[in-house]
Amino acid sequence: MKLDHTATGVYAIAATPFHPDGRLDTVSVDRLTDFYLGCGVSGLTILGIMGEAPKLDPQESLAITRQVVKRAGVPVIVGVSAPGFAAMRSLARGAMDIGAQGVMIAPPPSLRTDDQIIGYYAQAVEAIGEDIPFVIQDYPLTLTVVMTPGVIQKIVNNHPSCVMLKHEDWPGLEKISRLRAAQKASEMRDISILCGNGGLFLDFEMERGADGAMTGYAFPDMLVDVVNFQQAGNREAAHDLFDAHLPLVRYEQQQGVGLAIRKYVLKKRGAIASDSQRKPAGSISERAKAEIDYLLSRVARYDKRAAFRT
Amino acid sequence: MKLDHTATGVYAIAATPFHPDGRLDTVSVDRLTDFYLGCGVSGLTILGIMGEAPKLDPQESLAITRQVVKRAGVPVIVGVSAPGFAAMRSLARGAMDIGAQGVMIAPPPSLRTDDQIIGYYAQAVEAIGEDIPFVIQDYPLTLTVVMTPGVIQKIVNNHPSCVMLKHEDWPGLEKISRLRAAQKASEMRDISILCGNGGLFLDFEMERGADGAMTGYAFPDMLVDVVNFQQAGNREAAHDLFDAHLPLVRYEQQQGVGLAIRKYVLKKRGAIASDSQRKPAGSISERAKAEIDYLLSRVARYDKRAAFRT
Amino acid sequence: MKLDHTATGVYAIAATPFHPDGRLDTVSVDRLTDFYLGCGVSGLTILGIMGEAPKLDPQESLAITRQVVKRAGVPVIVGVSAPGFAAMRSLARGAMDIGAQGVMIAPPPSLRTDDQIIGYYAQAVEAIGEDIPFVIQDYPLTLTVVMTPGVIQKIVNNHPSCVMLKHEDWPGLEKISRLRAAQKASEMRDISILCGNGGLFLDFEMERGADGAMTGYAFPDMLVDVVNFQQAGNREAAHDLFDAHLPLVRYEQQQGVGLAIRKYVLKKRGAIASDSQRKPAGSISERAKAEIDYLLSRVARYDKRAAFRT
Amino acid sequence: MKLDHTATGVYAIAATPFHPDGRLDTVSVDRLTDFYLGCGVSGLTILGIMGEAPKLDPQESLAITRQVVKRAGVPVIVGVSAPGFAAMRSLARGAMDIGAQGVMIAPPPSLRTDDQIIGYYAQAVEAIGEDIPFVIQDYPLTLTVVMTPGVIQKIVNNHPSCVMLKHEDWPGLEKISRLRAAQKASEMRDISILCGNGGLFLDFEMERGADGAMTGYAFPDMLVDVVNFQQAGNREAAHDLFDAHLPLVRYEQQQGVGLAIRKYVLKKRGAIASDSQRKPAGSISERAKAEIDYLLSRVARYDKRAAFRT
Repeated sequence: MKLDHTATGVYAIAATPFHPDGRLDTVSVDRLTDFYLGCGVSGLTILGIMGEAPKLDPQESLAITRQVVKRAGVPVIVGVSAPGFAAMRSLARGAMDIGAQGVMIAPPPSLRTDDQIIGYYAQAVEAIGEDIPFVIQDYPLTLTVVMTPGVIQKIVNNHPSCVMLKHEDWPGLEKISRLRAAQKASEMRDISILCGNGGLFLDFEMERGADGAMTGYAFPDMLVDVVNFQQAGNREAAHDLFDAHLPLVRYEQQQGVGLAIRKYVLKKRGAIASDSQRKPAGSISERAKAEIDYLLSRVARYDKRAAFRT
Repeated sequence: MKLDHTATGVYAIAATPFHPDGRLDTVSVDRLTDFYLGCGVSGLTILGIMGEAPKLDPQESLAITRQVVKRAGVPVIVGVSAPGFAAMRSLARGAMDIGAQGVMIAPPPSLRTDDQIIGYYAQAVEAIGEDIPFVIQDYPLTLTVVMTPGVIQKIVNNHPSCVMLKHEDWPGLEKISRLRAAQKASEMRDISILCGNGGLFLDFEMERGADGAMTGYAFPDMLVDVVNFQQAGNREAAHDLFDAHLPLVRYEQQQGVGLAIRKYVLKKRGAIASDSQRKPAGSISERAKAEIDYLLSRVARYDKRAAFRT
Repeated sequence: MKLDHTATGVYAIAATPFHPDGRLDTVSVDRLTDFYLGCGVSGLTILGIMGEAPKLDPQESLAITRQVVKRAGVPVIVGVSAPGFAAMRSLARGAMDIGAQGVMIAPPPSLRTDDQIIGYYAQAVEAIGEDIPFVIQDYPLTLTVVMTPGVIQKIVNNHPSCVMLKHEDWPGLEKISRLRAAQKASEMRDISILCGNGGLFLDFEMERGADGAMTGYAFPDMLVDVVNFQQAGNREAAHDLFDAHLPLVRYEQQQGVGLAIRKYVLKKRGAIASDSQRKPAGSISERAKAEIDYLLSRVARYDKRAAFRT
Repeated sequence: MKLDHTATGVYAIAATPFHPDGRLDTVSVDRLTDFYLGCGVSGLTILGIMGEAPKLDPQESLAITRQVVKRAGVPVIVGVSAPGFAAMRSLARGAMDIGAQGVMIAPPPSLRTDDQIIGYYAQAVEAIGEDIPFVIQDYPLTLTVVMTPGVIQKIVNNHPSCVMLKHEDWPGLEKISRLRAAQKASEMRDISILCGNGGLFLDFEMERGADGAMTGYAFPDMLVDVVNFQQAGNREAAHDLFDAHLPLVRYEQQQGVGLAIRKYVLKKRGAIASDSQRKPAGSISERAKAEIDYLLSRVARYDKRAAFRT
């Protein structure tokens, strides 16, 4: 089975668990996979930016892929962004051989013009092969590459193997509307659109036509519920639940320390044994941890999943 | 009276009202000033980035300053950032002559190193004169200039006329803690710290030691209440009110369209006659307006000030 | 008479002369204009980046324009780039009323996508009016905006008033070839292409199809000779002269201090009374001045115009 | 033997030879090493940006290191810049075990403040170990990280294993002067300063106190001669030779296509079998090749090493 444009629901951006000394924590890899499955996710995306992928060596990347694919039972997408196409091809084909369902490719920060972006994806597809389904990662805030709807449209139409957009432009609501309008007008092939940015705009992204979320907020179960509520037409329930979590979603959305916050909560939820990052690592103060605990206690008034014994 | 380090409360970043054809709407300048005063602000900051200052000519800048100062009865800070020190001096001295209480200076985006930033403020102070109190605008997301607490400390200690920090680093909570610790350790003169970023982290910024907010969220009255609650030690009330507004605060915090959202709400609240911006202008779709209306209706369940007749 | 696509030769990017105290040096404005005319330039471009335009106030900008236009007797192009279209319109129309032949517009650094760039020029043309001939300034190194040949083609075809490209992409030789090929294939209206970047690639830019130079190297007379040699088919003479100057051209091409070097040489040549810049100003050390003097003495072995009494 | 602060002369930034199909060309690795040695270089720097290091996998990096170290007989410095410290440590220690004399570390583009840069090098030294001599790569044009002399001074003083600066700030002459002054005033330990930027300012960099060059210009023999002339106090000879090459040095200094130009000339000189790059690759047109040939023919009038049979 391969990823296709009908993908929907929540694909959790999986964290990569490390021991405090920087070694991969393979026991926690399983535990975290089980946690995500228990949250009701439709798939997993591993080796993304928040999965600390650039800090892994090629063997580790394949080892994690093998372990997650084996256990997950849901589609696994593998981040294969790399400075050279040789490494990208090697990881992409290796991951698919192991059972991954697709790969995700982010544009390198040096790209500026429409032509450069379109050309880059053409080269990437040539490198990994036209038989591997891929996801465009559209994340200007971190990558500094800005893709118009027209550019996305061209990449999709040029490459049948492009089946999904990880949408995390900011602001990005109009972009979803324009892409869906292009599909409706048969100017673009149908694709799946899953939204990132920590879920910060997921409430309205679903209403604009997104198929779900692909992000790593430490409560993937909340994201699943919001997606389900919206898909069932239960707008108020979606916003009520989303708004209850928003103070924490917002707090997690801090560049540079966001991953430390996320891992802190994942550890509290029992999903990983240690909140360590491999170096270079962000970290948070005791004060920040107390703020997170306070936010969790407030979320817990509405959503018991955020309640922890103290 | 001049601005000093004891400033506290909310200084609203004032929008600049325009007619649909791009002319200044001087009637709305008064109306908006009255609106801010009615919200209980402690001061006003005019001619900032969100005040479309770079689109005004020098005469208009002084005319607006004159009109606002005359009507406000609260301290007025004037944004004087400019590519050249001649224009900065001219506007700064002109504004102070008219009755402004201080000026705000943002670093130009070309600055990179600590020394460049410190040197720039030294030159700026030399240009405007040491007798004019000034505010450092620390806004990396838009300006791309990153100031460490140590750099801010040096600028403050180098220049007695530096009395306030407009804090809008992101993430920035630790920065407030570190600056206040530096003050406590007598490594830095006391300054006022007012927070920006649309208020997105105001709930915790107050707890870290901020003196208030300097931002343009369309409900300055909410900001005033949150600041008051926190200063009175009423933490729960502060967070409850803040969280009720957060979905809208977050929605307004969209680069490029944020001002259009803000002016749309200010117009709904009767504070300005038109939500037009001078060109080049951002704009929002009908769909976005419906989303804002929906968010307002949800905020109104908790805060009646967000209720509008439809 | 208005600027059109047949423009050729050298348009000197004029420095703006200041007194050491920062006041405009109007006597030197005339002297410098005469100097450029004596060098054989075909036109002048005033109020560009290297003319310290952002440090001037609107009255000064018009005053300089009036003075130069009156004296020059050759076409004068006025830089009208501004953060707001109101200021751009005001300066553009004011300058044309006074006798300027065209204006130059640089894209603001915030633009990223092809559509944003094309849209910006459409708005700018609407602002200044379709009757004013304009020059696109394509200068990625400083402005961070990258325009493909296709984008330039669209702007040219969208706006009959677009008559010239100030080409200073780097690398940029292929871009000239592609634009000329587009013209030949009738995919783009004819435009004039004058090259910037201090002249660093002028030798080959002429061979790729440029019409001349628009830059501020302190020996505009050398640029004029190189353009003439190339237009007369005298390739060897062009390269010989160019190469003799290249060590100094290269030395002047240092971001941040380039203008200080240029003004130092212009003063030595008697073209301006003081090499002062208005603040914020770059400056060069005594050591650097000695290096420039040494470079001049070496150029002088080939080109007597670089010989100075010591 | 390990690299120390007494290093002087030319360390060639070695290209990495590939077959047209992207495989490493190991035969050319030897041929190129011999070529550099024949040019009189004092050392070699491999796996730098221009060595296409990010496109190699870890095994290839070590294999190239092993091959070059074995053959070279001069000190070999290995570029070990990597997104994660685990990979940096692995390559650094592996390379030293094989016989490399030191490593080079570039700062990641995300760094902005002085503290961030100093902190990054502290973490890097902790990762690779204090026993491995390292070179700071100071290359703002490509890396966007700006280091003041004061920052370099702190890194040098914090880490005895910091023995060299690869200086390629632009402009950068004053920086060399200031660093040498700091040494003289005993504010900084002695370090070796070798200059990059394709050699574009090598003539004056030597006069400011540099110890030599570390760059990849396709005529390392010219760089060696210029360094030797300057060290022998033969200023005129240094400038005469340098200026003869400058038109080509300048031509090679084009971002994005510079490596293609360099490999084209290296192939012409018989140093590598193919000028192919691993993808993503820059390329040059037939027109550009003709321009290079023309420049070579002009250089050859002064320096016979640039003469080729046609």
